[in-house]
This record gives sequence, C-alpha cells and structure tokens, in this order.
Amino acid sequence: MAENKGVTPQSEDYSRWYTDVVKMADLADNAPVRGCMIIKPYGYELWENIKTALDIRFKATGHRNAYFPLLIPMSFIEKEAEHVEGFAPELAVVTHGGGKELEEPLVIRPTSETVIGHAFSDWIQSYRDLPLLINQWANVVRWEKRPRLFLRTTEFLWQEGHTAHATEEEARAETLQMLDVYADMAVNECAIPVIKGLKSPQEKFAGAAESYAIEAMMGNTWALQSGTSHFLGQNFAKVFDIQYLDEDNEQQYAWTTSWGVSTRMVGGVVMAHGDDKGLRLPPRIAPYQVVITPIWKSEEQREAVFAFTELVADQLRDAGTRIHVDKRDGLSPGFKFNDWEMRGVPVRLEIGPRDVEGRSVMSARRDVPGKEGKQVLPLEGLEMAIAELLENIQSSMLEAATKFRDERLHECATYDDLKKIVGKGWGLIWHCGTPECEDRIKEETKATSRCFPLEANEQWHPEGVQCTVCGKPAFGRAYFARAY
Amino acid sequence: MAENKGVTPQSEDYSRWYTDVVKMADLADNAPVRGCMIIKPYGYELWENIKTALDIRFKATGHRNAYFPLLIPMSFIEKEAEHVEGFAPELAVVTHGGGKELEEPLVIRPTSETVIGHAFSDWIQSYRDLPLLINQWANVVRWEKRPRLFLRTTEFLWQEGHTAHATEEEARAETLQMLDVYADMAVNECAIPVIKGLKSPQEKFAGAAESYAIEAMMGNTWALQSGTSHFLGQNFAKVFDIQYLDEDNEQQYAWTTSWGVSTRMVGGVVMAHGDDKGLRLPPRIAPYQVVITPIWKSEEQREAVFAFTELVADQLRDAGTRIHVDKRDGLSPGFKFNDWEMRGVPVRLEIGPRDVEGRSVMSARRDVPGKEGKQVLPLEGLEMAIAELLENIQSSMLEAATKFRDERLHECATYDDLKKIVGKGWGLIWHCGTPECEDRIKEETKATSRCFPLEANEQWHPEGVQCTVCGKPAFGRAYFARAY
Repeated sequence: MAENKGVTPQSEDYSRWYTDVVKMADLADNAPVRGCMIIKPYGYELWENIKTALDIRFKATGHRNAYFPLLIPMSFIEKEAEHVEGFAPELAVVTHGGGKELEEPLVIRPTSETVIGHAFSDWIQSYRDLPLLINQWANVVRWEKRPRLFLRTTEFLWQEGHTAHATEEEARAETLQMLDVYADMAVNECAIPVIKGLKSPQEKFAGAAESYAIEAMMGNTWALQSGTSHFLGQNFAKVFDIQYLDEDNEQQYAWTTSWGVSTRMVGGVVMAHGDDKGLRLPPRIAPYQVVITPIWKSEEQREAVFAFTELVADQLRDAGTRIHVDKRDGLSPGFKFNDWEMRGVPVRLEIGPRDVEGRSVMSARRDVPGKEGKQVLPLEGLEMAIAELLENIQSSMLEAATKFRDERLHECATYDDLKKIVGKGWGLIWHCGTPECEDRIKEETKATSRCFPLEANEQWHPEGVQCTVCGKPAFGRAYFARAY
Repeated sequence: MAENKGVTPQSEDYSRWYTDVVKMADLADNAPVRGCMIIKPYGYELWENIKTALDIRFKATGHRNAYFPLLIPMSFIEKEAEHVEGFAPELAVVTHGGGKELEEPLVIRPTSETVIGHAFSDWIQSYRDLPLLINQWANVVRWEKRPRLFLRTTEFLWQEGHTAHATEEEARAETLQMLDVYADMAVNECAIPVIKGLKSPQEKFAGAAESYAIEAMMGNTWALQSGTSHFLGQNFAKVFDIQYLDEDNEQQYAWTTSWGVSTRMVGGVVMAHGDDKGLRLPPRIAPYQVVITPIWKSEEQREAVFAFTELVADQLRDAGTRIHVDKRDGLSPGFKFNDWEMRGVPVRLEIGPRDVEGRSVMSARRDVPGKEGKQVLPLEGLEMAIAELLENIQSSMLEAATKFRDERLHECATYDDLKKIVGKGWGLIWHCGTPECEDRIKEETKATSRCFPLEANEQWHPEGVQCTVCGKPAFGRAYFARAY
C-alpha cells in the first residue's frame, strides 16, 4: 500500500523528488544487486504502453522482430576497435557455466551490433535479401557506477533496431526515418517535445559513423537523451563480413544502422511532467487513464454507489478506456485522491450518493488542480466526454511541456552568455565539435553538447563561421546543457 | 532465400527432420555460443502469437506484468536447499563486472523464485496485499549439455508467473487455475491436446511442494512437457520471509505458486503438427494465416494480376487476417508453393489471369493435400469464406492431433505391456511414485514418468492397489513414455 506522505518538493531537492516519485508511485525499486532495478507492475505497464506504441510504428515501417542471444563471445566485442574501447569498462563477464570454467569468457550483451552483424553475414547473400529490417526487444547489461532508477541502471530493457542496406543513401534515410519515429512517439504518446539532432564525435555511439538523438528537457531544465539512431556506415559490415552480391554479380559490403529506445524513457516521462504532488501521466501511455473512487458512508449507500460505479466502469471499459476502480476499504476518499494524484492518473471520477441520484459523476483532471479542473459529467454519453477529456489533457500536457521548454532555449552569442544559461536552460552556440573544446566547456560549466539540431543547421561547416567558445571553424550550431 | 530441397523424412530420422524444419522454415538457428539460439523473425512471430494468447489470459485472471533483475546474488540461490541442488549444475556465473572481479559472484537467473521471493517479502505486509498475482516475460539461462533448438537451449524465453496467497487452499486453486490456462492455450491456440497431471517427486521442480504439468504427444509419440505449474507451499515464503499480518494481527507465512511456459512450446508446435513437407501451423498462431501467390507470364498479365491481388489482400487485411503477398521475382509458382508449404502457412491463395477474369481465387489448404484441399472462392464475401476456412483448419488440426494421440494412449496391466508400448505410445500404469522404481523403468525402457493425470486419478494412494512395476503400494495411475 502506498504511503501517503508527500514527495520531497522539486525546489528543495530535484534528485530526491525524482527518487521519491519513482518509489512512492510504485514504478520501480532497487534490486538486491547494486545498479539493477525491479520494475513494479505500475512502472512496467507504463513501459508496456510505450513499447506497444513503438512496436506498431516499427511494424508499420516494415521491420520484423527477432531475438538474438544474451551471451556473446568476448572475441566478438573485440572485433571493432572503437566499439570495444567504448564498452569494455561496462561489461559483465561470465567465466563459469554448467559447473566449469569456460574456455572463452562470454559477455552479457551491452548492445547487439556484433552478434547481429555475425547473423546478418549469414542471412544476407544477394541484393534480393536487402534491405533487412530487424528489431529486437531485449534486456542489456552495462555496468553502472552511479546508478539511478530508469535513468542509468546496470540492466535495462530496450529495443534495438538493426538494419542492412545496399546503399549508403538508403541507410542514411533509414537512420533519419527511425529518428523521426522516435520523435513522433515522444511527442504524440509521451507528450514530450524533443529536439532531433546529430551527436558530436565525442558523444556518438562507439563504432558508429554518425549518431543522431532526440533530446528532451526535464523539469529542472536538464537534458535527457531519449533515443538514438546510428548510421554505422560499413564499419560493422567490414568487421563481420556482411557482403551481398549486387545486380552485376559483384560482392559489396552492406551499409548498416542501429537505433534504440530504453526504459530510460520512463524516467523521462516522470521528469518532463511530474510536479510536487507526484507523477503526471499523459493519457495515451497511462496504465490507468481513469480511476473511479466510490464514496459512501452507510452500507445502504455503499450498495447503491457500487452498483452505479459498475455501470460507469463497464460503459468506459467497453469504449476501450483503461480504468481502475478503487474499492479499497478503510481508506478515506481524501487519502485515495492524494494517492492517485501521486500516481499521476489523468482523470479521477468521484461517485457518491448524490451522483447516483443525479446519474452523473464528478470528474477531476490531474493536470488542472482545484475547482478549475472539476466538472460534472452525465452518465449519458460519458464515454465520449471522457475520450474528449483525455485527448484534451494529452494536448494540454504537450503544450505545457513545449512552452516550458521553449522559454528555456537560448541562442548564445558569447561563451559568457552560455555560462549564464547553463542550469537554467539550454544554450545554442556555434561549435567546432572538437573533443578538446567540449571537454573545456564541460569542465568550466558542467554542460555537455547535446546535439547539433537538424532544424538549426542548414549545412555543416558553414563558411567563415567560428566556434563561439574557441574560435576554431564551426561545425554547426549545437545545444549545450546539463544532462543526465 | 529458402533452399527448396525437401526436409529429411520423419520415418528416416525424426530428429534430423525436426532440425531441418526448424532451420529451413527460418524459425531459428544456432548462435555463436554453443547451446544458445537465434530466433529468426518467422519463429519469433510464432512465439509472439503464443505470448499474446497467454498474456491476454493472464490479465483476464487478474495477473499483472512486472520485471525482475537478470542477475541474482549467488547467496540467494543457495538459500533453498533443494532449489540450489537442482539448479547448481546449470548456472552461468558472472564473476567480473565493470572491469573488476566481483566480491560475490552473480548468477544469471535460471528462474526467479529467489529474487521474486525477496521482493515479495518487501511488497507484502498485510492480508490486504494478498493475493499478489505477478507475471514476468523474460529470458533465463540454464547451461545445457545436449542442446536442441527450442526444446533445450541454454538461453530461452519464457514467462514465469509468481503469486502469493493467504491460504493453502487459495494457492492450490491458483496452481490448478494456471494449469487450466495453459491447457486452454495449448488446445485452443496451438491445436495441441494435452494431458494435465501431477509430476512425480523425481520430476518435480526443485523447491516445489508439488508440480503439475501439461504433457503433449509429438509426431514420434514422444512426450513434451509443455508447461508447468508449481504449488510451492511455504518453502520459499519461509526462506525469503514472505510474511503478512492476518486479520487477527498475527504474522503468517504466505503460500506461493509459480508457473511457466517457454519457447519450448514452439518446438512442440513443430513436432505435434509437422509432416514430411515441413511445418503445419494452426491458423490462430500462424505468423501468416494466408499467403497469396500471384501467377503471371507476360508483363500485361503481371499488371492485372498484381492489381487484383492488392484488392484481395486489402479485403482480407481489413478483416484482420494476417496475410503475406509473395511478390518475389524470378521464382516459379511451384517453387513458391513448396516454400510456403514448408513454412506451414495454413491457406495458400493462387491468383492467375483466369482468376482475375473470374473475380475469384484458388485456395489450397496446407492440412489437406492435393485436389481435395483446393477450392475456388469468389471475391465477394471472400473475407468470410477465409475466416470460416481458417476456423475449419484450426479444428481439423486439433481433431487430427487428438485422434493421433488417443490411438497411442494405452492402459498397461503389466510391466511387459508397458515395455511393448514405449516408443510407440504412452503407457498408463499404477505407479508407486518412488525414485527407485522410476529409475529402474527408465533404465530398462528409456521411458520416464510423464505425470499422474488428474482425470485418471480420483484419489491418491488408493487402498489395496499396487505399483504395476514393483508391487509397492501405488500412489496413482501415471503415464510413462519416451520424452524430450
């Protein structure tokens, strides 16, 4: 049962607020092994809804699901030089199996480019086998020194798409298509506005030619990289020998991509929308879109209220609304209201004896506090009114998050401007893209380069433009911000 | 692309036939790490359909999904004496993480009773928190010495249900309810008749008080344990301290259950229905229920045939049928027919120039070979005709599998009778249930006890009845058979 004391206010300690909400809303908890988490039903159902929203989009764009092994030979990881350098410090290594020491240690997949590259080299023979469009839903393990529930955990759940193409052009188009799919999911399902952009060489995926990401602003203005899409060039194709016979009967290396979204997104939803009362969930992904709280005193009232509640519940359920009836005994309505507010349920319906008489319900919006968010809705046509209300909440939440974010995006003409912005918003500067300059900015401001937004850059290496910080030729315009 | 040579005939080598079908139908392949597998899209989609069918049933019976960690401290596994004895030889052990040797080795979950027991002790405080009904979709690892794709793999996918109850009675009812859910799924989705029964002490889950299973007969008469449901008593509750405060304010240990179905079921579908032409898939779980093969010679025909094919495809797709159009160039219709036959697609539709003219299609059933299974279907009302045809195939397949099995179930009055049956069917005998007697039967006949069928046993320990093999008092009637 939920403890009904409030969460730490955001203004007091944002980080504690986050942990309080995740734990008190029953989203997740720490596992016995440090850095791992237990995703509780309410948190898992949130992830399931994000998962379904993505899966539909993957299938609609021609991808098929498959499953590749958890255990990868150490030698596979070592084949791509940049890849092993990036992942070696984070690997979990299996040295014993079936009661014996293994001849070759195995790693638990930190990501599956290598083993999927191995499979693709077998599956792909001719240009007829291309494009090959695969997705996998899986768990991965990356040893995490400073774990945080959902945001950074040693084990996390994700999907990883892996595709192979005959031409560079096609592979690049796929990379950007999946970036768009992610942005569409974030905006239209999670009500989180995102900025699509290119990652700097420093921040790109180990082994990729280019990495793209969607970046979202959290409630404390920090950035959260919420999904990535990588153009891998021919790097993995060459290392794993993914070749095909082209129409002229010549062997060619394929061009590959990979892209992923993880349970980190759940943390993003918490931080993009939550307030001092707890979670606020966008209706499209909320496990419960509506919670009904029956209110009664006498046993006689109880019977009438419960009967009417069932009527209302059935009507909404039949219309496809995800509802929950809070029948718990021995808890006051006030306790229940706070509890569901903390869990971020978009709409609460109260049904008391007077509502039974009036054949109506009292609705309250999570996103609009107090009387302003309350409304009496008649039973007749209730399913339509609720559907409309949920749509309205969904778009209001996106609007509010967009307004919050847009007010905190700043174009910075000087390094000093950027320094003033960091921690209060994101700063857009002309940036050279060199690791040295990024390191300096990070050291001096704690901000990292988030991305070179596609919208803000018509071309790379614009002539005669210099890095706002170091004066070297600019690669393009990049956002810098504190980030998770 | 599929190789179009046939599979090894079942009569020649059943085991090779199985591997041929699994590989040639693109269900799965061996992974680089011995004992692990790569589940290819066609095999994964089959699993996804089984998964969805189960998930709907779990939710309908009040269970919620959650996710528990892959990595478990070695000390957890060691807490339940029988459990560690059963699983120790199969464990994969992580000794290094994040570049360092770990203080305590971690095991990759072989099953999650221990870590979920740990979580439940935290989640459960009072009788109000019970029953707790949880399911997890996950991968598990059990080191496998003699791996076979889907049937026995070091890593496999499964669901594991874990529930806690206030009373023994409720926990027992849950155990049997989930056994029924599994049987319902096997029979009504996979068209595989199953026998529900109690496992012998020798064959039960390590740590359970009692294990129940559904047992299915494969095409070579061997048995496949296709799902298990365990009544765990208070074993794990006592070891992991799962206690609740009852209505009289006294601490009580909970009663727990666990139950699982795995990707092994995919192997069961292959072997319960397959024939010398390859797979035969029940429509309800087939990735493609209908494949349309357009047939053309001239470019002019091609255009007309493809246009009509699109019409047919849209009509069926709109009706919710899972269809695939085989547009591959450069392959003869005959090659394609064989290919889809091998992949077990329930219905094939052929569309040639004459069909376009007649506004009709030629349908062919996978389960009824030759002319008998062919039928011309008019475009008008096609979606209804196909829906009916699929229903008919589904029930015909169940009927055929049931007939095949029932003809091979034998009541054996003597041990000699049993010896004659083994390898050609299953023998039902009175059985003492002791490990010594089971071991002897296994050594002498290679048959193992499958289960004490619930239907064939009105009571345990019937008075005055003796074990057919050793003469000791019988526990009940049990099936013995060769098994996977």
